[in-house]
Amino acid sequence: MSSTFCITLKDVQEAQKRIQDLIHATPVMSCSSLDALAARKLFFKCELLQKTGSFKVNKFGGALNAVQCLPAETCKAVVTHSSGNHGQALALAAKMMGIPAHVVVPRTTASCKKAAISGYGAVIVECDPTDESRTVVAAKIVEKTGGILVHPNQDPAVIAGQGTIGLEVLQQVPAVEALVVPVGGGGMLAGIAVAVKTIKPDVRIYAAEPLNANDCYRSKVNGVLTPNLQPPTTIADAVKTSIGPNTWPVIRDLVDDVFVVTEEEIKHATQLVWERMKLLIEPTAGLGLAAVLSKRFQERTQI
Amino acid sequence: MSSTFCITLKDVQEAQKRIQDLIHATPVMSCSSLDALAARKLFFKCELLQKTGSFKVNKFGGALNAVQCLPAETCKAVVTHSSGNHGQALALAAKMMGIPAHVVVPRTTASCKKAAISGYGAVIVECDPTDESRTVVAAKIVEKTGGILVHPNQDPAVIAGQGTIGLEVLQQVPAVEALVVPVGGGGMLAGIAVAVKTIKPDVRIYAAEPLNANDCYRSKVNGVLTPNLQPPTTIADAVKTSIGPNTWPVIRDLVDDVFVVTEEEIKHATQLVWERMKLLIEPTAGLGLAAVLSKRFQERTQI
Repeated sequence: MSSTFCITLKDVQEAQKRIQDLIHATPVMSCSSLDALAARKLFFKCELLQKTGSFKVNKFGGALNAVQCLPAETCKAVVTHSSGNHGQALALAAKMMGIPAHVVVPRTTASCKKAAISGYGAVIVECDPTDESRTVVAAKIVEKTGGILVHPNQDPAVIAGQGTIGLEVLQQVPAVEALVVPVGGGGMLAGIAVAVKTIKPDVRIYAAEPLNANDCYRSKVNGVLTPNLQPPTTIADAVKTSIGPNTWPVIRDLVDDVFVVTEEEIKHATQLVWERMKLLIEPTAGLGLAAVLSKRFQERTQI
Repeated sequence: MSSTFCITLKDVQEAQKRIQDLIHATPVMSCSSLDALAARKLFFKCELLQKTGSFKVNKFGGALNAVQCLPAETCKAVVTHSSGNHGQALALAAKMMGIPAHVVVPRTTASCKKAAISGYGAVIVECDPTDESRTVVAAKIVEKTGGILVHPNQDPAVIAGQGTIGLEVLQQVPAVEALVVPVGGGGMLAGIAVAVKTIKPDVRIYAAEPLNANDCYRSKVNGVLTPNLQPPTTIADAVKTSIGPNTWPVIRDLVDDVFVVTEEEIKHATQLVWERMKLLIEPTAGLGLAAVLSKRFQERTQI
């Protein structure tokens, strides 16, 4: 494994030790009718059921590990920018550690996600729905508050914390042959890729990405980091952001393929999970199934 | 325990042995934020996740036990009338046993439920949305096909099969103090009541019922079976039917109380489960939480 990656398996394992008493291993579910549609056995890692105390928070492992790695005694505040899920996760992690949190959100973020962030006691600051505006506004808040920026997907501690999902999957589904992971900034994808490929190099790691926000796909094709130039329009609102300098090398070297799917495919897959599994996932969580059901995936991965 | 009940604990235990290889014990989930709202620890028995082969079918244990108790070699067909869930369950159980099924459904039944019944290979016959029309039309189909009627909630084998849910809860939550069960025809309620009260008489059994279809409540108040006179209008469409001659004696003697809830309370509770638990329940499944959150329940069961 290249030593140029921002994290190693050891970071993921240490993150797991650090956070394991505060979070639950989410269940893995299966659904025979979706297996039949996909012509293979599928296992759904139910991160939407992540529960911590009174709360249910996606992507919590990354934020919690990051906050726990901060110098608790001198840290005045944490700051992040997020389309919603990481913002909620960081707000709650900061609340648990007694640190003030400021979350920069695009003004287009769903009101229920903003309400959840406020509900965890964080200050919300709105920005334009572009990567640039997020970065600029967050930097200003850092300056103003003397806080520490916890980047939603390029922070190594966030990436390592999200990689714990990969460790859980290896334990829960020992025979797993491939993981399909939605990619926005790539923190979850990179963390899982480092963890899984180090332990079991033969397990394939695939990314699932909206065609309308296909920077990861284009980066892999070009062999060079190629962010989205325009703010993408996709129903999978948690993956509008582009992969970045820390996640790109991992994705470049360890991710076996990227599958892009249309908005229609995302909606169809999301509705299938609602109907067949009775799980109320958000569209971003439908990306993985959409990818698996796509024509290219079926051709590329014929059994 | 009165010997006048249509089933005993032994029937429920035998049903469990008969069906256990074909169904899964559904998981019990919890949610701290709903515990806080209810001011007590809640356990949600997730029958909506019942899975059998390729299918996900509510109320499957009752129908499966009933079909397995039929004389397989001479049974020409099974017939039932159902607002949807039992119809699906019976259709699938019959398919598994290789017996033709005819399901009488009110023409107001949701199209997705009708599609599921057809999908399991059963013949659908529509009727008016009244208890009387259901009965009359089903009797005609029995005569025409030479089939056997499996009543959705008064058939003892259905009641015993649904009672297995009670056995599972006692095993999964040994410290359980009370079960709250939605009541329509009362098959699930009566089966669970017989099983649980025989094993642990101190565990309370409560029914949850829409105010708009409150025949069970009125029967308990009057001390005599008092069916709904008009077809009820409620969003909890799986409990529009009235309790009947086989379930009433059990409900009269073993159910500790009946809590009625308004349509607004049902909608609110259903939405809470969607938002907080990410489980896509139907409104009938929201009845239990609605009852627990109701003012009368909170007063009646103060800790």
